[in-house]
Amino acid sequence: MEKLEMLYEGKAKRIYRTDKPGVFWVQYKDDATAFNGEKRAQIMGKGELNNRITSIFFRMLKKKGIDNHFIEELSSTEQLVKQVDIIPLEVVVRNIAAGSLAKRLGMEEGTELSQPVVEFYYKDDELGDPLVNDSHIDVLGIATEEERRYLREMGLRINEILTAYMRERNIILVDFKLEFGRTEDGNILLADEISPDTCRFWDVDTKEKLDKDRFRRDLGNVEDAYKEILKRIGGEAHV
Amino acid sequence: MEKLEMLYEGKAKRIYRTDKPGVFWVQYKDDATAFNGEKRAQIMGKGELNNRITSIFFRMLKKKGIDNHFIEELSSTEQLVKQVDIIPLEVVVRNIAAGSLAKRLGMEEGTELSQPVVEFYYKDDELGDPLVNDSHIDVLGIATEEERRYLREMGLRINEILTAYMRERNIILVDFKLEFGRTEDGNILLADEISPDTCRFWDVDTKEKLDKDRFRRDLGNVEDAYKEILKRIGGEAHV
Ligand SMILES: Nc1ncnc2c1ncn2[C@@H]1O[C@H](COP(=O)(O)OP(=O)(O)O)[C@@H](O)[C@H]1O
Ligand SMILES: Nc1ncnc2c1ncn2[C@@H]1O[C@H](COP(=O)(O)OP(=O)(O)O)[C@@H](O)[C@H]1O
Ligand SMILES: [Mg+2]
Ligand SMILES: [Mg+2]
Repeated sequence: MEKLEMLYEGKAKRIYRTDKPGVFWVQYKDDATAFNGEKRAQIMGKGELNNRITSIFFRMLKKKGIDNHFIEELSSTEQLVKQVDIIPLEVVVRNIAAGSLAKRLGMEEGTELSQPVVEFYYKDDELGDPLVNDSHIDVLGIATEEERRYLREMGLRINEILTAYMRERNIILVDFKLEFGRTEDGNILLADEISPDTCRFWDVDTKEKLDKDRFRRDLGNVEDAYKEILKRIGGEAHV
Repeated sequence: MEKLEMLYEGKAKRIYRTDKPGVFWVQYKDDATAFNGEKRAQIMGKGELNNRITSIFFRMLKKKGIDNHFIEELSSTEQLVKQVDIIPLEVVVRNIAAGSLAKRLGMEEGTELSQPVVEFYYKDDELGDPLVNDSHIDVLGIATEEERRYLREMGLRINEILTAYMRERNIILVDFKLEFGRTEDGNILLADEISPDTCRFWDVDTKEKLDKDRFRRDLGNVEDAYKEILKRIGGEAHV
């Protein structure tokens, strides 16, 4: 497998073409950004930690029947994935009120939701990734009603699997963000990453935040928190 | 009919109890507010204009089969309505991108939407009336899925009626906000008001704004714009 030219550099990863059609080479970076890019930093070892954590989650999800883009880990910061056309919707699933939901609905952070909340955000940095409803998605022509139903269903199924998996490891899955993409043969595949950058994880006993909120809210020990997540899900960091 | 104690004073109207059970006395005020109450003013004659305009719209909608709370006009600023339990959702229907939708979706104001957009906003001044999706409404316990379907359907039907009605009067209905309430016998009824405070109206030829945007954006001649709307729908102001 040869790594060819870089196709896209995002806030957290670089995507490269390979000599194999339909296969992308992903390199996880140490860059951390928050508040739509306003806050920036480098977090030593984050690229490695997220690459490893995502690999473990995607392998586990595959085993549980959730088909996804992950092919294989290449190195501490690199993995191969199936190329997809990313659907520009962030699919957010929430079990407990936190962050923007707590603010939007006037709920105290930590309030358990009576049922999981699913939200779609329009993936557009310039617009600040706004919340969109079905009607907006129709007008933008981003996804059909059937696709939205599928994304919601997948979000809820992944939520059940991940919640149970983390609960066994003494971690509460508060909320998380997924991205999906369309494959050449017209299927929708889970893509992107699942990591402390894209989930809220709280320790069951101490309620300590073990995720990107440590960076967003200047709580310190960001790296240690990510390492703790990797440790709990059975991985090992070399950083 | 006797007007009894004031039950509620909102930003635009006062609601009084009457001696007849199930009947409220509404008094339209001259107060104008925008940006969640941050901008305030008195607009001479607005109470009268909105009372008259709403009365004409609600009578017309009734004739077209849209049952609503309107009973009768009492005076230039007062009307009788059926008491309902207001569902705390602002049902917004849009035909053309303007205001917050243009901003949210990055569309130029004036862009025709490929189909009407329906939005629900959680009616809560403290939270700034946030956009909510079905999942939020479920968790808040505000309205069932069936009720949401009904509200959407009613919004779209009223949009068709109002759009045609205004188009005949050389006015483009850009967007508007509706409120609905539950009656004692368990029905959902269109309530509140339909006026230049709650709609965007543009002159077909000049594209001149004939609505509250004149106040929001300091365009001047607010009163004249509201008078023009009343004139076009066949009413007469005494202000
Ligand atoms: N399998 C895939 N095929 C194509 N693009 C992908 C795939 N997985 C993730 N991406 C995209 O790679 C880009 C880089 O990721 P990231 O650095 O997280 O970007 P962002 O700044 O948008 O968060 C993103 O646009 C993401 O959606
Ligand atoms: N038929 C009705 N029965 C009960 N309440 C009503 C009815 N129609 C409107 N209302 C409510 O009357 C209140 C006063 O109206 P308004 O001044 O427009 O309030 P706001 O400041 O919430 O916009 C609002 O809460 C509105 O929802
Ligand atoms: Mg990303
Ligand atoms: Mg009002």
